[in-house]
Amino acid sequence: PPSAGACFIVMAGGRLLSRRGKTWVPFSHGEYTALQLSVVSQHFLGLLDGQPCHVLEARPREYPDSELEWFGLRSFLGRVDDALFEVLGRAQQVLNWHNDHRFCGRCGGATESHDAERAKLCRVCDLQFYPRLAPCVIAIITRGDECLLARNSRFPAGYYSVLAGFIEAGESAEQALFREVKEEVGIDIRNPRYFRSQPWPFPGQLMLGFHAQYAGGEIEVDDEEIEEAHWFRFDRLPSVPPASTLSGQLIQDFVAQAKQRK
Amino acid sequence: PPSAGACFIVMAGGRLLSRRGKTWVPFSHGEYTALQLSVVSQHFLGLLDGQPCHVLEARPREYPDSELEWFGLRSFLGRVDDALFEVLGRAQQVLNWHNDHRFCGRCGGATESHDAERAKLCRVCDLQFYPRLAPCVIAIITRGDECLLARNSRFPAGYYSVLAGFIEAGESAEQALFREVKEEVGIDIRNPRYFRSQPWPFPGQLMLGFHAQYAGGEIEVDDEEIEEAHWFRFDRLPSVPPASTLSGQLIQDFVAQAKQRK
Ligand SMILES: NC(=O)c1ccc[n+]([C@@H]2O[C@H](COP(=O)([O-])OP(=O)(O)OC[C@H]3O[C@@H](n4cnc5c(N)ncnc54)[C@H](O)[C@@H]3O)[C@@H](O)[C@H]2O)c1
Ligand SMILES: NC(=O)c1ccc[n+]([C@@H]2O[C@H](COP(=O)([O-])OP(=O)(O)OC[C@H]3O[C@@H](n4cnc5c(N)ncnc54)[C@H](O)[C@@H]3O)[C@@H](O)[C@H]2O)c1
Repeated sequence: PPSAGACFIVMAGGRLLSRRGKTWVPFSHGEYTALQLSVVSQHFLGLLDGQPCHVLEARPREYPDSELEWFGLRSFLGRVDDALFEVLGRAQQVLNWHNDHRFCGRCGGATESHDAERAKLCRVCDLQFYPRLAPCVIAIITRGDECLLARNSRFPAGYYSVLAGFIEAGESAEQALFREVKEEVGIDIRNPRYFRSQPWPFPGQLMLGFHAQYAGGEIEVDDEEIEEAHWFRFDRLPSVPPASTLSGQLIQDFVAQAKQRK
Repeated sequence: PPSAGACFIVMAGGRLLSRRGKTWVPFSHGEYTALQLSVVSQHFLGLLDGQPCHVLEARPREYPDSELEWFGLRSFLGRVDDALFEVLGRAQQVLNWHNDHRFCGRCGGATESHDAERAKLCRVCDLQFYPRLAPCVIAIITRGDECLLARNSRFPAGYYSVLAGFIEAGESAEQALFREVKEEVGIDIRNPRYFRSQPWPFPGQLMLGFHAQYAGGEIEVDDEEIEEAHWFRFDRLPSVPPASTLSGQLIQDFVAQAKQRK
């Protein structure tokens, strides 16, 4: 049973319960009791500000109080601090894991929960299912003072970002990077340099960020994923992702380095 | 239908069919036809030496020819070149994916294959299942001329390796590294420096290798995973993993750097 100092993230139907107009989500034990939710499942997430933090999955259609509203996870990106955002993302991913492994993918039979680990078990197939993370590469490709930015058709007009893609079975992050860049824009790169990583809970990627240099070839976009790609000077960038995203951080880092060289 | 120049990896029950005493596995179209296997499923893997390569899943108990034998994937590690080993690993992971997502984990209903992507679909739940990769961190922790190596109870006597662990939902690779080292040996580290990555098909990890420096604390092993951990001088190492593994490469790189400083 959760301790008195514990904090609670309340989710239903993939959305988070929060006070309207506020950015802080977790509820205290007293608050969550007062909400009189019918809790479907409950999972320990780790510590948040030194307090144990749990996610509670509630029935989807309860809107218990007019000061409260259900929000999508995306609406908190860049509006709460990184530590809280990571816990919110983990909350969503743990619930996805819990709900998406009720049955064994191999035999279709019901799974059981593991006693000690965050794993579902199929005793028939001797299979274990852990929360799934899909590793992705993301890279800013530079050519002197310019960087390559691309847009896909889902982006708002005038908005560009760096290239990204999923790592496949049997390739390293670096191999995935060479392949994705070649597939998406037709150019070759060299000197991939790791920058940093970021968990990305939409729905559960681990983004591995790289700097890389242009090595050859003409831009030729693969129309399926990319609509347009261009070289942009560091001081004449289009509208780009915010610093809450690894893509935004890669662009900022490139700009800072280019300015330093002047 | 596969082209005449295509090559084939034959698997059954998680094992690979190979010529005894040889290291090279794939079969030509003619060879595989001569084997008269009953093929359960077939998947395109990519190019190997410029030729399209497929994995064929055969019935488990056929041993068609006395020159041929079924081998576990591990027996090829370090015995075939990296490009071939990666394709063999991909073959095994693609078959695991194919067999482990026959049913939707959420509703238990049968899945369908996606037309264009390596994905299984559940139309009822609107869920997609891709081959699963579990990102892991692995690090050599150094303190001057020494590095930290550990052994778990499954290792042969006298054998040590670097620390590794799975990245969890909601954490970056770097955060996972700090957490795993603290959990497994109780020490603090600083300056994690990315080294390189390696696909690890047992059963499907992406290993992210780091160098890191000792920052404080006494070694205190978590007896569940680690049996012993010690500091070893670069010129007095115990028996360690081979250079075909990222752990071996991290150790080699540390030794080379320590020698260079002399
Ligand atoms: N944090 C950031 O700064 C940042 C920036 C850009 C992209 N991203 C993320 O990176 C990911 C890759 O970027 P993208 O532009 O290629 O995305 P995308 O959404 O265009 O996906 C590309 C293709 O990959 C397929 N796919 C989905 N999940 C997969 C999986 N687990 N394994 C293999 N294939 C899969 C999709 O069906 C799609 O056809 C996206 O999930 C995106 O959200 C994060
Ligand atoms: N390529 C290399 O050089 C190299 C070297 C060392 C370790 N590794 C691999 O790194 C991985 C991690 O190393 P370790 O020593 O912690 O392994 P381990 O086998 O000791 O596993 C540790 C724990 O993680 C759990 N686990 C298994 N799959 C998981 C998943 N997908 N998500 C979360 N937890 C999971 C296991 O149940 C176990 O309790 C292992 O798979 C190992 O094979 C590779």
